[in-house]
Amino acid sequence: MTDTVAATTRRREATRQKLLDAAAQVFAEVGLDAASVEAICERAGFTRGAFYSNFETKDELFLELSGNVARERVRAVRGRVLELESAGALDDTPTRAFDIVQQVLDISADDRLGVLLMSEIRIHALRNPQLAAAYLAQEDEMRRSVSQIIEDIARAKALRFRIPADEAARLMLTVWEGASVRAVMSGLDYEEMCVHTNAELARVAQLIIDAPED
Amino acid sequence: MTDTVAATTRRREATRQKLLDAAAQVFAEVGLDAASVEAICERAGFTRGAFYSNFETKDELFLELSGNVARERVRAVRGRVLELESAGALDDTPTRAFDIVQQVLDISADDRLGVLLMSEIRIHALRNPQLAAAYLAQEDEMRRSVSQIIEDIARAKALRFRIPADEAARLMLTVWEGASVRAVMSGLDYEEMCVHTNAELARVAQLIIDAPED
Repeated sequence: MTDTVAATTRRREATRQKLLDAAAQVFAEVGLDAASVEAICERAGFTRGAFYSNFETKDELFLELSGNVARERVRAVRGRVLELESAGALDDTPTRAFDIVQQVLDISADDRLGVLLMSEIRIHALRNPQLAAAYLAQEDEMRRSVSQIIEDIARAKALRFRIPADEAARLMLTVWEGASVRAVMSGLDYEEMCVHTNAELARVAQLIIDAPED
Repeated sequence: MTDTVAATTRRREATRQKLLDAAAQVFAEVGLDAASVEAICERAGFTRGAFYSNFETKDELFLELSGNVARERVRAVRGRVLELESAGALDDTPTRAFDIVQQVLDISADDRLGVLLMSEIRIHALRNPQLAAAYLAQEDEMRRSVSQIIEDIARAKALRFRIPADEAARLMLTVWEGASVRAVMSGLDYEEMCVHTNAELARVAQLIIDAPED
C-alpha cells in the first residue's frame, strides 16, 4: 500500500516535471502569451487532463517554472564556486582570474533557448510584481555569488579592484546578459556566443582590475 | 480636388498615427501577443475597419512601430548631441563630462511604458530575424552617437580613456538598459529611476576615465 502511494507520488512528480520541461521549451520558442496549454501538452506527450490535475492555469505553471529556473541558476553558480575553490583554481595565475568568473557564469547559461526563456521571465516580471520580486531576488543571489568569487580572487592574488566587489559583480552580470542577448539576436551559435560574451567580460575585467599585470 | 486629396491623406495619416500611439501603449501594458486588435482600436477610438484599412495585421503594425521607436530614439540622441555642442556644454568642467552622456541617454528614455515597449520589441527581435536586424541597427546607431559624444568630451577636456570610445559607448548603453529595467522592476517612479540609473552610469564613467580628476 505504502509502495503504491510512493509509486503514484513518483509518477505524479515525473509528469509534473515533464510538463515543466515542455513548457520551458514552448515558452522560449513562442512566449508565454502565445503558448497554448494544448501545445505544452502535445510537447510533453500528455493530455489536457494531466495538465489540469497538476496546474490550475498556465500562469501558475509559468510562475513555478520561473522560480525553478532562478533557483537552478543560483544552485549551479554556487556549486561551481565550491568546485573551483576545492580544486584550488582561485590560486591560479592572475591572467586566469576572470576566466573563472566567465566559467562560473557559463555554467548557468544559456544557449539560445535559455536566453529566450530568461527574457520571457524578465518581461513578465516587468508587468507582474510577484514575478518581479522573485526575479530581483534571484539576481541579488547571483550577484552575491559572483561577488564572493571576485573577493576570493582578489584575496588569493592580492589584486586591487577599482570598485567594490559587489558593484563589479553587478557590472559583470549586466554585461553578460547584454552580450548574450546580442549574440542570440545576431544569430551566433553557442560556441560563437561564448567567445563573444567572453571577450566583452574580459574587457570589463580589465577595467575593474586596478593595475593589469599582463 | 487636390485639396480634398491632401485633406484625405492628412486624415489618413492622423488615423494611422493614432493607431500607432494607441498600440504602443497597449503593447507596453500587456505585450504583443496579448494585445488584441479590438483593444488597440478601442484605445484609439476607432473601429476595426479603420485598423484594417491601415494595417494588414497586428504584426505589420508592430514592425512599423518598432522601426519608428528606433528611429525616434536615434533622432532624439543626435538632436541632443548637436544641441549640447552648440551650447558649448562639451567644454564644461570635467566633473560634468559624463553627466552629458546621461543627459543624452535620458532624452531617449524612458519612463515605465518606454522600458516595457523596448523590452517587448527586444524579446520579439530575439525570435524574428527581420526585427532583430532592425533592433541591432538601431543599437549600432545609438552606440555611434554616444561614441561620438565620448570622443568629443575626450578631445575637449584632454581626458584619456582606458578603452576605445566605441567600447565605452557600448558599455554605457548596456548598463543604462540594465539599470532602467531593474528600476522599473523595483517599482521606482520616473524621478527615482533617473537618480538610480545616473548613479550606475557615473560609476562606469569613473572606471572608463583613465585618471579621475575629482
